[in-house]
Amino acid sequence: MKSARQRKDRVVLDTSLFVNPEVRSDFGDTPTAAINGFLAIALQIPSLEFYMPSSIFQELLNFVNEKEIPGSFLAVLRQKAPSKHELTCPAFFLYELIEDIRERVNKGLRIAEKAVRSAGKGGEQEVIQSMRKNYREALRDGIIDSKEDVDLILLAKELDALLVTVDHGAIKWAEKLGIRWLLPTRFRAYLLSFIEQQE
Amino acid sequence: MKSARQRKDRVVLDTSLFVNPEVRSDFGDTPTAAINGFLAIALQIPSLEFYMPSSIFQELLNFVNEKEIPGSFLAVLRQKAPSKHELTCPAFFLYELIEDIRERVNKGLRIAEKAVRSAGKGGEQEVIQSMRKNYREALRDGIIDSKEDVDLILLAKELDALLVTVDHGAIKWAEKLGIRWLLPTRFRAYLLSFIEQQE
Repeated sequence: MKSARQRKDRVVLDTSLFVNPEVRSDFGDTPTAAINGFLAIALQIPSLEFYMPSSIFQELLNFVNEKEIPGSFLAVLRQKAPSKHELTCPAFFLYELIEDIRERVNKGLRIAEKAVRSAGKGGEQEVIQSMRKNYREALRDGIIDSKEDVDLILLAKELDALLVTVDHGAIKWAEKLGIRWLLPTRFRAYLLSFIEQQE
Repeated sequence: MKSARQRKDRVVLDTSLFVNPEVRSDFGDTPTAAINGFLAIALQIPSLEFYMPSSIFQELLNFVNEKEIPGSFLAVLRQKAPSKHELTCPAFFLYELIEDIRERVNKGLRIAEKAVRSAGKGGEQEVIQSMRKNYREALRDGIIDSKEDVDLILLAKELDALLVTVDHGAIKWAEKLGIRWLLPTRFRAYLLSFIEQQE
C-alpha cells in the first residue's frame, strides 16, 4: 500500500533541456521537438510539478516560435519568478561570492596584461580574440553571472525542488545551498522511473 | 526627566577613522594619536557602544604597534565578527550584486581591448600602467570587494548600529540594506553632542 504524499515533488528546469543540442536529444532533435518530447512524458506523471523561472522561459522563446508551443506545455511547465523580496540567502553565501569574484577580477587583469605584452609583438586581432576567450572563461565560467541564473537557484530553493541544469555556476551554488540537482542527460531516465513505478 | 533606555546605541567603526590622513586629523596626527584621541572622547560617553569587526581590527594593526594600543581601547572598542552563519541577506541584494558585477566585468574587457589596441602602437609599459588603473577603478570602486567590507556591513546590520566609514562600496550597500551611516569627518561632532547632552 502506498502512503498518500503530502506534497508533489517539484522540478525546476533550465532551457538547456530544450535548446542545448548535446542534452536535448533525449527528448527531440529541435527545440520544438524536445518540448513535445518532454511534454508527452511529463503528462504521464501526475506526481511531479514542473517549473521554469519566467526569465528563463523568455530565453526559451528565442529558440522556438511561440505559436508552436502547445497550450498544455504552458499548463505543465509553470512559469514563476522566485519571490525575490521575501527570500533571503545565508550571509556566508555573500562571503564566498565576493571572494570568488575578487580572485577572478585579479585573474582578469593578469590576462589583460599578458595580452598587452603580446600585442607589442604584433598580431593585434588574434591577441584580442584570444584574450576575450580567456577573460570570459576566467570571469564567467562556474559563476552565477546573470539575473536568470539567480532566478534558477532561488526558485529551486523556494520550492525545495530538483534543479535540472547543465550550468556549472548554478550547480556549484546549488551544492552550497543544499539544492538537489540533476544533469539533463539523466533527466529522461529519471522521469521514466516515475512512469514505471506507477504501472 | 530622562527615560531609561532599553539598549545602548551602537556604532561600528572602519579603520579609516584612524588610518586615513584626510579623516583621522579630527582625532590625531598619527594612527596611534587618533586612537588615543578617540578613546579620550569615547570614555566620556557611557551611552554608546563601539564595535569593529575583528578582520578590520587586524588591518588596523598594520598601521599601529600593538603594544602602543591602550588596554582601555580594547575594552571600549569591541572586536566582533558578524554572526555569519546565522545572518541572512535579502535575495534582491544578490540580484543587484550580480548585475553590478556583470556590467563591471564587461567594462573591464572593453578597457583591456582598448589597451591591447594602444599597445600595438608602442609604449607597452605606460599602456599597462594606465590599464591597471582604469581596470581597478571599473571593477572595484563603489563595490563591496573584500571579506572585510562584508564584515563591516553585516556587523552594522546585526547590531542595528551606525556605520562610520568613508568607503563608497560600504555606504552604497548600507543604503540598500537600511543601515545608518556617517562619514568619519562628522564623527567627532557626533560624539561631542553626546557629551554636551549629558552636561
